[in-house]
Amino acid sequence: MDYLEQSFNIRYHYKIFFTEGLFDSDNLLLADFFNGESSAAQKKVLFVLDAGLVDANPALETAITAYFQVHRAVELVSEILIVPGGEAAKNNPAVLESIIEAVDVHGIDRHSYIAAVGGGAVLDLVGYAAAIAHRGIRHLRIPTTVLAQNDSGVGVKNGVNYKGKKNFLGSFSPPVAVFNDKQFLLTLNNRDFRSGISEAIKVALIKDPAFFTWIEAHASKLLNRDMESMEYLIKHCARLHLEHISSLDPFERGSSRPLDFGHWSAHKLEQLSNFSITHGEAVAMGMALDSTYSLYAGVLSEEKLQRILNLLALFFDITNPLIRITDLNAPILQGLQEFREHLGGNLCITLLRDVGEGFEVHEMDPHTLLQASQYILQFKKRQFDTNTFPL
Amino acid sequence: MDYLEQSFNIRYHYKIFFTEGLFDSDNLLLADFFNGESSAAQKKVLFVLDAGLVDANPALETAITAYFQVHRAVELVSEILIVPGGEAAKNNPAVLESIIEAVDVHGIDRHSYIAAVGGGAVLDLVGYAAAIAHRGIRHLRIPTTVLAQNDSGVGVKNGVNYKGKKNFLGSFSPPVAVFNDKQFLLTLNNRDFRSGISEAIKVALIKDPAFFTWIEAHASKLLNRDMESMEYLIKHCARLHLEHISSLDPFERGSSRPLDFGHWSAHKLEQLSNFSITHGEAVAMGMALDSTYSLYAGVLSEEKLQRILNLLALFFDITNPLIRITDLNAPILQGLQEFREHLGGNLCITLLRDVGEGFEVHEMDPHTLLQASQYILQFKKRQFDTNTFPL
Ligand SMILES: NC(=O)c1ccc[n+]([C@@H]2O[C@H](COP(=O)([O-])OP(=O)(O)OC[C@H]3O[C@@H](n4cnc5c(N)ncnc54)[C@H](O)[C@@H]3O)[C@@H](O)[C@H]2O)c1
Ligand SMILES: NC(=O)c1ccc[n+]([C@@H]2O[C@H](COP(=O)([O-])OP(=O)(O)OC[C@H]3O[C@@H](n4cnc5c(N)ncnc54)[C@H](O)[C@@H]3O)[C@@H](O)[C@H]2O)c1
Ligand SMILES: [Zn+2]
Ligand SMILES: [Zn+2]
Repeated sequence: MDYLEQSFNIRYHYKIFFTEGLFDSDNLLLADFFNGESSAAQKKVLFVLDAGLVDANPALETAITAYFQVHRAVELVSEILIVPGGEAAKNNPAVLESIIEAVDVHGIDRHSYIAAVGGGAVLDLVGYAAAIAHRGIRHLRIPTTVLAQNDSGVGVKNGVNYKGKKNFLGSFSPPVAVFNDKQFLLTLNNRDFRSGISEAIKVALIKDPAFFTWIEAHASKLLNRDMESMEYLIKHCARLHLEHISSLDPFERGSSRPLDFGHWSAHKLEQLSNFSITHGEAVAMGMALDSTYSLYAGVLSEEKLQRILNLLALFFDITNPLIRITDLNAPILQGLQEFREHLGGNLCITLLRDVGEGFEVHEMDPHTLLQASQYILQFKKRQFDTNTFPL
Repeated sequence: MDYLEQSFNIRYHYKIFFTEGLFDSDNLLLADFFNGESSAAQKKVLFVLDAGLVDANPALETAITAYFQVHRAVELVSEILIVPGGEAAKNNPAVLESIIEAVDVHGIDRHSYIAAVGGGAVLDLVGYAAAIAHRGIRHLRIPTTVLAQNDSGVGVKNGVNYKGKKNFLGSFSPPVAVFNDKQFLLTLNNRDFRSGISEAIKVALIKDPAFFTWIEAHASKLLNRDMESMEYLIKHCARLHLEHISSLDPFERGSSRPLDFGHWSAHKLEQLSNFSITHGEAVAMGMALDSTYSLYAGVLSEEKLQRILNLLALFFDITNPLIRITDLNAPILQGLQEFREHLGGNLCITLLRDVGEGFEVHEMDPHTLLQASQYILQFKKRQFDTNTFPL
């Protein structure tokens, strides 16, 4: 056989900074970051902001402009883009196009920067635009929701939806840095504040029993938006995500995706609800389903399951009727087939053996899922009957 | 400073196979490749063909279908896409869209394959579609032009044009394998056959003096389409490109791009000619210009320069009037600024110290470029006057 061979490694490295008041002119973090970047020429940075965030922080644009008037390590592109927040950012191709156009108009090159400030959806969109323009412009993430700070914003994936299909277009392209500013969380509504807690419960359930216990113990503080607790939750959750990504298969060449615990149904539930439930809410429902499935599969004790459902139910409405599986044609079950296709034919589902101990299986029995869904809806009943959380 | 850190390596590895009659059913190369790919489930492969290639090889589609009827390691998607060949493939967003749509309609997942068969333009387009769909579908390249077999098809870049700007959208995403079938070259017209020789002269000039001498010695054979000579040229050139890519900076994070010798003006010349001159032709003109610049910069002897211009002129019309630089507003000079922007502010231009020895400079003097362009046009005169190639 006549052939040549090519092989090489590409190294990725970035930091996730935790700060407060990122754009206060006496906060040097961002300026120092740009100063530290090696570069022969004057660099530009294009900012893209989440409109929902801007609504809640009308002074943000001015603060950014003022910051870069004081700190001149990088040249702020005069036009600051504001794009719709939430899934709309990823659904509308015109929004993507507007970022590409700005890259062109403002001469943003591969050694310049695009900074995204917003929720996970805006970060996914902007990361994708940065990945494809000029074959990859350096991008910075400044996540402003709990979910984006503890999960989506610290990872390596980005993407947009295509004809309603979640993340159909996207890429694996790590940011050059992430800046988590806790002040942004203050303006979140309660739903978005809680939504990201779901991903923390997820990593706790699959790999960190002590963290699960911590969340149980701090549940009421978190419900009351105690910021110190939230800060710990975000940082610990981000760390677990980061470790998980780097230790296994960052660009997901295999089929295994334990971080997707509860997600096969979550993706479908989001879609079935027409995105009226958030990603975090859907993941909570999905985890309830797969934890209960673990009970029926004979691998998780009912006592443990109750602990899990109790915690989830404190934050989320896990008994949303969408979870009901009445027969084998229930729409939610299509999620299984779609997830299989997404992974590439080989289904990998995470189940629980214990709180903090996930493991993989390669098939799911729809009848058992039906039983599991009924159990969850029952759980609600018991909960309302007794108004206590049985342990 | 409060931060977490992420770092990991991603390994890339692929082979470039050389064969003849890739789709002959008794050629096991492709079947063996698919058999060798680890996979739990039945995989699909979607083929995308270059319309110019199909015009010249009307039986190609049938041959591909027949091949996968015999060899069933992978399931051939019944619809074989045929897309326009040449730059049209990269200029029209609807062509890109048609591939994305096929990925959706035929359920091509991340563990399935897209195979591109065609010239460099079709390969660039299909590689890009594969890179963004589902965050990256495995892609196979089957290059069918000299340039694609010895240069573009063996590398890691892909892309499409945006509003006429070359490769404005794209990504670095290596193929899983490349299959160079020399039979495809037989149907190329003379221009496309010669065009890829330009990139071979390029690598020879910057790093392999013996290869340059070899090309000189085999010039008339190559002009007469001697296939044995062409086979050697392609393989040697591909090897030099591969070594170059892996030894330095595969995803071009820095500004240095020695493989782009002659390309700053070539990209502009292609555009100025409205793509009526080929990439290879433009690169030949660009190399003539930068070699002559090296003479005026005092680093290359005139004897060496003559050797270079003589060889280029055997294959290409290096004295196309587009090369003329009459004043400092000459359109071609804008290419310098555009190249600088493309690299990210820090200009890196390769000049020659000798045949086979390139080195980098970070600025170019437009007056000297003007002189160099006049020298090249003069060269034509001498050539026509004497009808010999002075050495
Ligand atoms: N890339 C990944 O690895 C990854 C992982 C998980 C989820 N995601 C994606 O993340 C998205 C969900 O992200 P999300 O949960 O951050 O929600 P989101 O991005 O949809 O934002 C929710 C809402 O909050 C608003 N908002 C953002 N910051 C605000 C602030 N500080 N104050 C007030 N309002 C604010 C937004 O405008 C929006 O209306 C989904 O598209 C999901 O697919 C990506
Ligand atoms: N990705 C990279 O690293 C890289 C490097 C160099 C060039 N390129 C790109 O490659 C493109 C040029 O590629 P090219 O020189 O292969 O030309 P091309 O792709 O434009 O093809 C030239 C013509 O040949 C036809 N054709 C292809 N194969 C044929 C065959 N076997 N028989 C008959 N006709 C055939 C095509 O239909 C087209 O009309 C440019 O877009 C350039 O930007 C990319
Ligand atoms: Zn999630
Ligand atoms: Zn080239």
